[in-house]
Amino acid sequence: MFRKLSNIVKKLDHFILTVSLVKWLFLSSIVGVIMGVLSALFLRSLKLATDLREANPWLLFLLPLAGVFVSFLYSRYGKNSSKGNNLIIEQAYYGDREIPLRMSILVFVGTFLTHLFGGSAGREGTAVQMGGSISEFIGRLFKLDKHDMKIILMCGISSGFGSVFGTPLAGTIFAIEVIAIGYMYYEALIPCFISAFVGDYVATLVGATHSHYHILSVPSVTPVNVIKVIVASALFGLMSIVFSEGVHISKSLFSKITDNPMLKSFIGGFVVIALVYIFNTREYLGLGLPTIKEAFEGNVSKYSFILKTLFTSVTLGAGYQGGEVTPIFFVGSTLGNVLSDVLLMPASFLAALGLISVFCGATNTPISSFILGIEMFGSNGVVFMFIACIVSYLFSGHHGIYTSQRVYRSKS
Amino acid sequence: MFRKLSNIVKKLDHFILTVSLVKWLFLSSIVGVIMGVLSALFLRSLKLATDLREANPWLLFLLPLAGVFVSFLYSRYGKNSSKGNNLIIEQAYYGDREIPLRMSILVFVGTFLTHLFGGSAGREGTAVQMGGSISEFIGRLFKLDKHDMKIILMCGISSGFGSVFGTPLAGTIFAIEVIAIGYMYYEALIPCFISAFVGDYVATLVGATHSHYHILSVPSVTPVNVIKVIVASALFGLMSIVFSEGVHISKSLFSKITDNPMLKSFIGGFVVIALVYIFNTREYLGLGLPTIKEAFEGNVSKYSFILKTLFTSVTLGAGYQGGEVTPIFFVGSTLGNVLSDVLLMPASFLAALGLISVFCGATNTPISSFILGIEMFGSNGVVFMFIACIVSYLFSGHHGIYTSQRVYRSKS
Repeated sequence: MFRKLSNIVKKLDHFILTVSLVKWLFLSSIVGVIMGVLSALFLRSLKLATDLREANPWLLFLLPLAGVFVSFLYSRYGKNSSKGNNLIIEQAYYGDREIPLRMSILVFVGTFLTHLFGGSAGREGTAVQMGGSISEFIGRLFKLDKHDMKIILMCGISSGFGSVFGTPLAGTIFAIEVIAIGYMYYEALIPCFISAFVGDYVATLVGATHSHYHILSVPSVTPVNVIKVIVASALFGLMSIVFSEGVHISKSLFSKITDNPMLKSFIGGFVVIALVYIFNTREYLGLGLPTIKEAFEGNVSKYSFILKTLFTSVTLGAGYQGGEVTPIFFVGSTLGNVLSDVLLMPASFLAALGLISVFCGATNTPISSFILGIEMFGSNGVVFMFIACIVSYLFSGHHGIYTSQRVYRSKS
Repeated sequence: MFRKLSNIVKKLDHFILTVSLVKWLFLSSIVGVIMGVLSALFLRSLKLATDLREANPWLLFLLPLAGVFVSFLYSRYGKNSSKGNNLIIEQAYYGDREIPLRMSILVFVGTFLTHLFGGSAGREGTAVQMGGSISEFIGRLFKLDKHDMKIILMCGISSGFGSVFGTPLAGTIFAIEVIAIGYMYYEALIPCFISAFVGDYVATLVGATHSHYHILSVPSVTPVNVIKVIVASALFGLMSIVFSEGVHISKSLFSKITDNPMLKSFIGGFVVIALVYIFNTREYLGLGLPTIKEAFEGNVSKYSFILKTLFTSVTLGAGYQGGEVTPIFFVGSTLGNVLSDVLLMPASFLAALGLISVFCGATNTPISSFILGIEMFGSNGVVFMFIACIVSYLFSGHHGIYTSQRVYRSKS
C-alpha cells in the first residue's frame, strides 16, 4: 500500500518536473533571446565607444559633463536603479524589491557614455542589470509567483553574464551562486542554463564576438608548483579585497564630499582626467582589453594592477556605470603577469589564474569562477585553476564587490 | 564607530578563516594520506582479484560460499556496517549515527572477495565507506565537534572517491553535493579538496593507475546536435532510474525470500552463476573495464547495458560489496555506444556523455558529474557535457542509488 502510494507520488513528481521543464523552456528562452540580442548590441556599442574615444582623445574632457548627464538621468528617471547589481541580488534573495524596466535602458546608455568619454569600468554590471530588469518585466507579464520570480531573475543574470562574456556555463553557475555566499540555488540550475545558452547562442548568431586568451604553457603538478600557486592565489584573494574595498571606499569618500549625484560624477570625471595626466597614460580608460591580452602574451607594467584599481574605484565610486568584472580581469591578469617574474612560472598561466581568482575573490563564486576558467582556457591545468579559485575564495574572507550579497554559510 | 567595529569583525573573520585553514590543512591531509595509501592498495587488490578470476574460471562456483562468508562477517562483526554508503550519507546529514572503524576492513575484504569470485559490482562504495569510517575515527580521535565531524566525514568521501578514480576535483564536489539533493556544503569545500587532492596525489605516488578513455570526436554545437544530446541525456536519466530501481527491487525481492543475510548471498551467488550460463558470457562479472574501453573505441552488444544492470542488481541486492559507480560507468558508456547508431553521433562522444550522465542521474550530483567529465575527457565538448548532466539530473527525478539521500530542494 505504502509502496504503491509512494510510486504514485514519484510518478507525479516526474509529471511536475516535466511541466516545470516545459514552462521554463518557454520562459527562459524568451529571456535568452532578448538578452542575446541586447548583449550583441551592447558589445557592438562598446566597440564603437572605444573606437571613437581612441580616435578622438579630446572626448575625455567631456567625461565630467557626461557623468552629470547620466547621474541626472538616474536621479530624475531611475527610481532605485542606481543601486545597480545590488538591487538585482537583493530582489533574487528577498523577492520584495522592485526593479524598474527602465533600468535596462539607463544602464545601457550610462555604460556607453562612460566608455565613450573615458571612464574605467566593465560591462558585466550592465549585462546583469539589463538581464535582471528585463526578466523581472517578463515575470510580471506572465504573473509568476514569488518563487518563480526569483528564478526568472536569476535567468536574467545568467543570460546577461553568459552572453556578454561568451561563457554560458559560467553564466549559469554565476547566477545561482552569486546571490548568497556559500549557497547554490539548484532549483534555478536548469532555467538559468537555458537562458544562458540561448542568450549566448543568439548573441553569437547576430554577430557578437569575444576576446580569447590562451595559456601558453602549464607547469606540472608538483608540490613546489602547488605551493607557488597557493601563494599566488592567496595574493589574488587579497588583491580582490583591495579592489572591492577600493570601490567601496571611493563611494563613501564621494558621499562625504557631496550628496548630489551629479556633482559627484562631475568631480569624479575631473579626478579621472587628473589621473590620466598624473600617470601620463590612457591605458586605464575604458575596458582595457589590449592590456589583458598583453598580460597573456608579453609584459605589462609592474603597477598596472594598482592603477587599474585606482581608475576603476574613482569611476565607479563617482557613479559612472558599467560594472567591475572586466577591470577585475584586467587586475587579475596583470597581477598574474607581474607575479610570474617573482614565482618563475609562465606569465600566461599566472595571468589566467589571476583573472579567474581575483574574480572569484571579488564575487565569492568559486564554482562559477572555476568553470569560467574551463570555458576561457580549456582543461589544461584544471587542478591549478581549482586551487586558485578556492584559495582566493578563502583569502577574500567575506569581502566582495556586491554589498548586498548575504553570507549563507561562513567559508570555513 | 560602526565602521571601526565592522572592520575589527572583518579582521577577526580573517583570523578565524586562517585558523580554520591551518586546522583543516592538518586534518584533511591526514585523511588524504591514509586514504591515498588505502586506495592504491585497494586498486591493486582489485587488479589481483580480476587477474586471478580470469585465470581461474572455476572460482565463480565458489561465489555463493564467498557470499555466505562475507555476510557472516558483516552480521557477526559489522554492527550497522551493512547499511553501506547510506550510513555515511546519513551521518554526514544528521550527525547522530555511529560508523564503526571496522567497516573499512569489512568493505575492503568484502569487495575483494566479491570481485575475486565473480560478483558484478563497483568500487566507489568501498572507497567511500573506507574514507567515511576512517575519517570518522580520526574525527573522534581529535574530539571534533558535531559540525567538524560532518566536514571530516565529507573529507573521507572526497578522498575515497578522488583517489580511487583519479579525479580529485569530482571527488571534492561529489562529497559536498551527494549528501542532499539540491544542496552543496560549501563550508566543506576546502577541507574536501585538500583530502581529495592529497589522497589522489599519494595514491599515484605509491603506484595507483587509472583507466583512461578518450572522446575521439566532438560534434559542433548546432540546434540539431543539441536536440540529439538532450534526447540521449533524457534516456540516460531514465536509464539511471532503471538501474537504481533495479538494485532496490532486487534488494527487496531478496528480503522477501529470506531475512537471513547469509542465505541471501548464497542464493544470489547461484543466481549470478545461472545468469552466466543463461547468457553464456562472463563479460558482466567484476568491474567490466574492458567493455567500458570497448564502448569508447568500438562496438558493444546492444543489450550489454541491460545485462550489466541485471548482473549488478542481483549481486548488490544479495548483499555483496563494492558499490555501484563502475557498473554505472559501464551501463552509461555502453548505452551511449548503442545510441550512437540511432542518433548518428560519434560513439566515443555518446559513451562519454552516457558515462557521466547516468552517474549524474543515479547520484543526483550534477556539478560533480560535469567536473568528472572534464577530468576524464578534457574540455572539448564542455557544453554538451553540461547539458547531459543537467538533463539527466532532471529526468532521473528524485530517484537514485542512495536511499538515504534527502531532497533539500526539488529539482525544478
